[in-house]
Amino acid sequence: MSIAYSTSKIYKIINGRLLINHEIVENSYLWYQDGKIIHPQSLFFDHHRDADEIIDAKGLLVVPGFIDTQINGAYGIDFADYEHSVETIQENIDIVAKGLLRYGCTAFCPTVVSSSPEVYEKVLPLLNHRKGSATGGAEILGAHVEGPFISVEKKGAHKQSVFRDAKEGIAAFDSAYGSELLKGSKAVAIMTVAPEIEGVSDAIPDLVQRGITVAIGHSACRIAEAEQAVTNGATSITHLFNAMQAFHHRDPGLIGVLGAADLPLPTTSKGHPKPSLTSPCRHSPDPRPFFGLICDGVHVHPNSIRIAYYSHPSGAVLVTDALSAMGLPEGEYTLGGSELQVDKNGAAYIKGTSTLAGSTVTIDECVRNFQKFTNCTAVEAIEAATLHPAQLLGIEHQKGTLNVGGDADFVFLDDSTGELRVEKVFVAGDEVSF
Amino acid sequence: MSIAYSTSKIYKIINGRLLINHEIVENSYLWYQDGKIIHPQSLFFDHHRDADEIIDAKGLLVVPGFIDTQINGAYGIDFADYEHSVETIQENIDIVAKGLLRYGCTAFCPTVVSSSPEVYEKVLPLLNHRKGSATGGAEILGAHVEGPFISVEKKGAHKQSVFRDAKEGIAAFDSAYGSELLKGSKAVAIMTVAPEIEGVSDAIPDLVQRGITVAIGHSACRIAEAEQAVTNGATSITHLFNAMQAFHHRDPGLIGVLGAADLPLPTTSKGHPKPSLTSPCRHSPDPRPFFGLICDGVHVHPNSIRIAYYSHPSGAVLVTDALSAMGLPEGEYTLGGSELQVDKNGAAYIKGTSTLAGSTVTIDECVRNFQKFTNCTAVEAIEAATLHPAQLLGIEHQKGTLNVGGDADFVFLDDSTGELRVEKVFVAGDEVSF
Repeated sequence: MSIAYSTSKIYKIINGRLLINHEIVENSYLWYQDGKIIHPQSLFFDHHRDADEIIDAKGLLVVPGFIDTQINGAYGIDFADYEHSVETIQENIDIVAKGLLRYGCTAFCPTVVSSSPEVYEKVLPLLNHRKGSATGGAEILGAHVEGPFISVEKKGAHKQSVFRDAKEGIAAFDSAYGSELLKGSKAVAIMTVAPEIEGVSDAIPDLVQRGITVAIGHSACRIAEAEQAVTNGATSITHLFNAMQAFHHRDPGLIGVLGAADLPLPTTSKGHPKPSLTSPCRHSPDPRPFFGLICDGVHVHPNSIRIAYYSHPSGAVLVTDALSAMGLPEGEYTLGGSELQVDKNGAAYIKGTSTLAGSTVTIDECVRNFQKFTNCTAVEAIEAATLHPAQLLGIEHQKGTLNVGGDADFVFLDDSTGELRVEKVFVAGDEVSF
Repeated sequence: MSIAYSTSKIYKIINGRLLINHEIVENSYLWYQDGKIIHPQSLFFDHHRDADEIIDAKGLLVVPGFIDTQINGAYGIDFADYEHSVETIQENIDIVAKGLLRYGCTAFCPTVVSSSPEVYEKVLPLLNHRKGSATGGAEILGAHVEGPFISVEKKGAHKQSVFRDAKEGIAAFDSAYGSELLKGSKAVAIMTVAPEIEGVSDAIPDLVQRGITVAIGHSACRIAEAEQAVTNGATSITHLFNAMQAFHHRDPGLIGVLGAADLPLPTTSKGHPKPSLTSPCRHSPDPRPFFGLICDGVHVHPNSIRIAYYSHPSGAVLVTDALSAMGLPEGEYTLGGSELQVDKNGAAYIKGTSTLAGSTVTIDECVRNFQKFTNCTAVEAIEAATLHPAQLLGIEHQKGTLNVGGDADFVFLDDSTGELRVEKVFVAGDEVSF
């Protein structure tokens, strides 16, 4: 990749153990300039320049920033909350975007649960793609709209009264989400739909045409419906195992797509998992979708995580699915009209009960849990929160790797205790102070 | 391995593509004598002998004979049927043992469903280990007793009235099965139990001590109970997915054992799967159990087969779980007191309904289906019906491979159409005529 010559400051990370091409590389350097990773060769030979600033990683792992493609909010703030002024909502979004950096999350898809058109109209414009920065917060990759084209049977905590069908095809989607949907992935990066809802499966090609990543979830679909949706262009499963049919041996439902052998091979690699040892064809992109996993140890049993991962290793995408209680200190709160209690471990319960109100896990904790649950390598665990979500969104040339040309979003991880702990975070080349 | 010198006839298979050490080897020969595979070197150098008879495999695959560890009967005969004279029962067993050869099945565990003590007393002595021969039939590896220590909740077609608990420990087993149980694996090769039945899990070490392979099945156990049973010595799961809890994300039940990461590592390789890429430790035997799969395309959805296989590839064991209707021509039958209808494809239905009465699949069809469902290699598919069941029973030095010292039980397979078709079968070195 050729980089236009720039006179701005050049940075060089030394003493780091870099995650490059699925491997931890020692004794190598990482160079960046203007917020982008660069190749040092042209500097030396063409411009006779060396680094202006050296960053000593002191033996830590240097990996791409984590990407969370499903997060409903944090710090008492919910992205679907529209009962404030636009200014207040904007401030709230900024609070979350900044707060996520401490967990190594440098980019995210703010997730909006099933809502009415007036909510989308007010909220979605504020969740459009926005560059990240060390002071402004994690990059917004466009919203993840979860519903309202989902199943009453698998509604979870979603408000059934706003659910819709898609008898009118793509027009039904435009009328649900409003004009933002015409902006495509800039506004709506991911849409979670249930393919058994009338008209939904047939509308998937139109959604894909707009650049939107279509995920299947909150669905009671059977395996045939799930496979048809994938054939129509769906490339992800939303929080696998949660809000879908249990895996029944005669009809494994949506989960069963992980075992699909006959799906048509993708004609492009964009948006599809790379082939793995379990792929139908080991030389073509895997036709099976990516799948989100909530690795908090509560939403999904560790053994299920492990089975899913080994069935389709290149498709695993770690998500927090965190709700607004994430990041709050111990105490009692009223969030989205519900009384919650957050305990000292950060777990949020419906007040006075032992019923979890939802996930409060952070993305770095997901990476640690995933490694523990699956017994995978550190590289494999990290890629499930970096490379794979970037591939899912088709942005792996900007995010999710340390490749030349990509954004200089890094996390320095300490793995000396056997667990991956976030030590430093950089966004667009600038170190975050926290 | 040193083989005592024998003057009997020496056979040499030429032009075969041999399955040796997980690979198809061309341009090699297979030598055998006295029903055992031999190493030709000592013949040449020590005794200056060459083969007495050449067998031309004409380019076919030469693989070990198939082993079926779960089969209830065939040709209208049920191994749990005791309402005949001992002579008639013996004749019936012989009919099945001979009949199975045509499918490439050269060894099997005749399976007896939950029965009362008088049934076991009469039937089990006839199902003791018995060498196979081309005229006498497939080798009997000892019985597989399925129940009566199983769950009412997951009883399938078993007769609940004979179910038992094991409050008295191993004594409860002796009183259920009678004196045959003292013979260990010679009489009872495999026992299927539900670990949540009182006393069962604690009795597993005593059963294992007698050389019996303990399988978990017909069980509503939760994951913790399943893992405890495995820790206690259970090394198999009986027909995975069938007659157990559906895979629920918060408690994946017995199926979830395929995702277990924390089971204690076996101290011996005997009876345990080899390590695979998905094993908790890649240098020790896999602590997870083997698992039987009914690959008829009906009992288990193809995608579920695929997910299970890729989660734990070295543990897959193909079983027919065939009932007495297997091998019968189209028509109506009364079997085990039920009116059945066998259609032209060999499928058995409860008369006048579309309800399947059970499996009628043959082991060679299982191998073909498994390859199709999982997209695995021919070697992988064949090993799931040869090497893996032999390892499960701890008899891989006699059965399940073409290694020197093993029994000369072979199947010649034609793979020229992309499907594996049985062409010739040899038992203890003799060709079967059919």
